[in-house]
Amino acid sequence: MHYADFLQQRITETSPVCVGLDPVIAKLPEGIAKDIGGVKDFCIGIIDAVAADAAAVKPQLAYFELLGWEGMKVFFEVCEYAKKKNLVVIADGKRNDIGSTCEAYADAYLGKNSPIDALTVTPYLGSDGVAPFMERCAKNDKGIYVLVKTSNESSGDLQDLPIGDEVVHEHMAQLVESWATQLLGAKGNLSAVGAVVGATYPEESRYLRTLMPHVPFLIPGYGAQGGTAEDAALGFLPDGTGAIVNASRSILYASKGKDWQEAASKATKTMSNELLKVIAKK
Amino acid sequence: MHYADFLQQRITETSPVCVGLDPVIAKLPEGIAKDIGGVKDFCIGIIDAVAADAAAVKPQLAYFELLGWEGMKVFFEVCEYAKKKNLVVIADGKRNDIGSTCEAYADAYLGKNSPIDALTVTPYLGSDGVAPFMERCAKNDKGIYVLVKTSNESSGDLQDLPIGDEVVHEHMAQLVESWATQLLGAKGNLSAVGAVVGATYPEESRYLRTLMPHVPFLIPGYGAQGGTAEDAALGFLPDGTGAIVNASRSILYASKGKDWQEAASKATKTMSNELLKVIAKK
Repeated sequence: MHYADFLQQRITETSPVCVGLDPVIAKLPEGIAKDIGGVKDFCIGIIDAVAADAAAVKPQLAYFELLGWEGMKVFFEVCEYAKKKNLVVIADGKRNDIGSTCEAYADAYLGKNSPIDALTVTPYLGSDGVAPFMERCAKNDKGIYVLVKTSNESSGDLQDLPIGDEVVHEHMAQLVESWATQLLGAKGNLSAVGAVVGATYPEESRYLRTLMPHVPFLIPGYGAQGGTAEDAALGFLPDGTGAIVNASRSILYASKGKDWQEAASKATKTMSNELLKVIAKK
Repeated sequence: MHYADFLQQRITETSPVCVGLDPVIAKLPEGIAKDIGGVKDFCIGIIDAVAADAAAVKPQLAYFELLGWEGMKVFFEVCEYAKKKNLVVIADGKRNDIGSTCEAYADAYLGKNSPIDALTVTPYLGSDGVAPFMERCAKNDKGIYVLVKTSNESSGDLQDLPIGDEVVHEHMAQLVESWATQLLGAKGNLSAVGAVVGATYPEESRYLRTLMPHVPFLIPGYGAQGGTAEDAALGFLPDGTGAIVNASRSILYASKGKDWQEAASKATKTMSNELLKVIAKK
C-alpha cells in the first residue's frame, strides 16, 4: 500500500499521535536494566503500551547510535517489533547526502524488506539529496519527511533568512510540494513526501499548510518543547487529516516508577483526546 | 592535541590528501570476499596502502549503515585501525539534530574515547544543531566540518538562494567563521570548526576562503566528480595550509585486480604530487 494511504488508514484507526522513541539509559524507569538490553525492553514495552492509541512510532537514530553497533542492532529489532504491531515506523535520522552515498542511505532505511516505513531527511544539499529517497518511496511504498521549519529556537538562523518576498523555509516548502505532487497516494490528496513542521511556530505552520496542500506533516515540538494541541492543529488539513504530532519525553518518561507502561498509555490517550478535540473544531 | 594542530601536523608529515572510504560490496576487487568481512579487509588494506601519503581517511557512514548493525561494527573497527595508523579519522555522517538528540550524536562520534577525530555536520537547524558538537570539540580535542557549499549539481537549490546582496552559502560561511573563532588551535590561525566546500565550484571556493580565514576546509569533488587540483587549491590559505582534499572512488577502485593496494597507493601519491605542485605556486 502507498505510504500516504497506509498512514491515513492508521491515523483513522487510532489517532494522529506519533510516539518518539528516544531511549536514554540514565532515564530508564524502575524495573528496567540500565544497559542496552534495558533499552530494548523499554522500547518494546512502550510500543506495547501505545500501539492501540498511536498511529506511529518514531525511533530516533541518535540514541541508538550512541550505543554503538549493539545499539544499531537494537534499533532494527525495535523497528521490526513496531512493524509487527502494525504501527507506522518513522526512523528519525535526518539523513542527507548525494549520488551513490544518498542511494546507500535510501537502501539502508527504505529498502524493500526494511521494517521502516519512512525516514526524516535534511534538504541542505538540494534535490540531488532527495531524489534517491523518492525513488525508494515510489518503488517500495515508503515515505520521507523533509525538514522545512524545525521546532528549535535557532531554526531561523538559516530557515528564516529572507529571499526576496519570502524566507528560506517558505521556498523549501514550495520545493517539497513540487516533489510531493509526483508521489501521490491512491486517494490523490496526500503524498509519500512529507514535511517536518514544528508546533512551536504556529503562524508559520498555518501558512506552510497552505503552501503544501499535498504534504503530510510530521509535527514535533508538542508537550515538552512547549507546543499546544491548538498549535499542532494548524498543521492539519481542513478536513482534519494530513498530519501526525510527535511527543517523546512526555510519553516515554510519564512515570519513572513501575507503572511506566500504564503512564505512557495514559499520556498517549490524553494527547490523542486533546488533539482530536481541537481538530474536530476545525 | 587540539584538532587543528593535529590536522596540520599530519598534513605537514604527509600531504593534504584525504581518502574517502566508500566501500561497496559489488565493487570490491579481486581476492576480496564479496561480503561484510570483505568490506573490513578492503578498508584495512586501503588504510595500509595510503597511510604513508594521506593525512586523513573519511569513512562514509552510509555505506556501513547499508550493511545494518554488522556494518556499523565494521565501521568502528575500521576507524580504530585508522586511528592506530595515526591517520586523521573523519566520519562522514552529515549528522544534524537539536538539544539532547544532538548531544547523543556528538557523544556517539566525538566522545572522549572515540577513534573518530572529526564529523561532518549539516547546518539546516541553525546554531542549536552545531553547539553540542562544538562542546565536544572543545572538551575532547575533536573537530567538525559544517556543510557550506557542497560539490553536487543541485547544491544551489538551497545554498545559492539570494539573501539581499549575498547568497545562503555565503551567509552560512560567516556563521561558520564566527563559530570557528571560538575554537582556535595553539597556533591561533586554524579552528576545530571546519567547512565542507566542494572543488566543483572554483569561484565560490575562492570567495569562501576569504570569508572563512580560520576555517579548515574539507574539499570533496576532486577526481571522479570533475574538480581539478587547480580548483581544489583555491580552498587553501595563501601559505598553502588549511585544507584537505578528498578523493574516494579514484583511489579505492584504482584497480579491480589483485594489485588494488599498489594502485591505491600510486593514485594517492599522484594526487598528493599534483596538489603539492599547485599549492606551491600559490
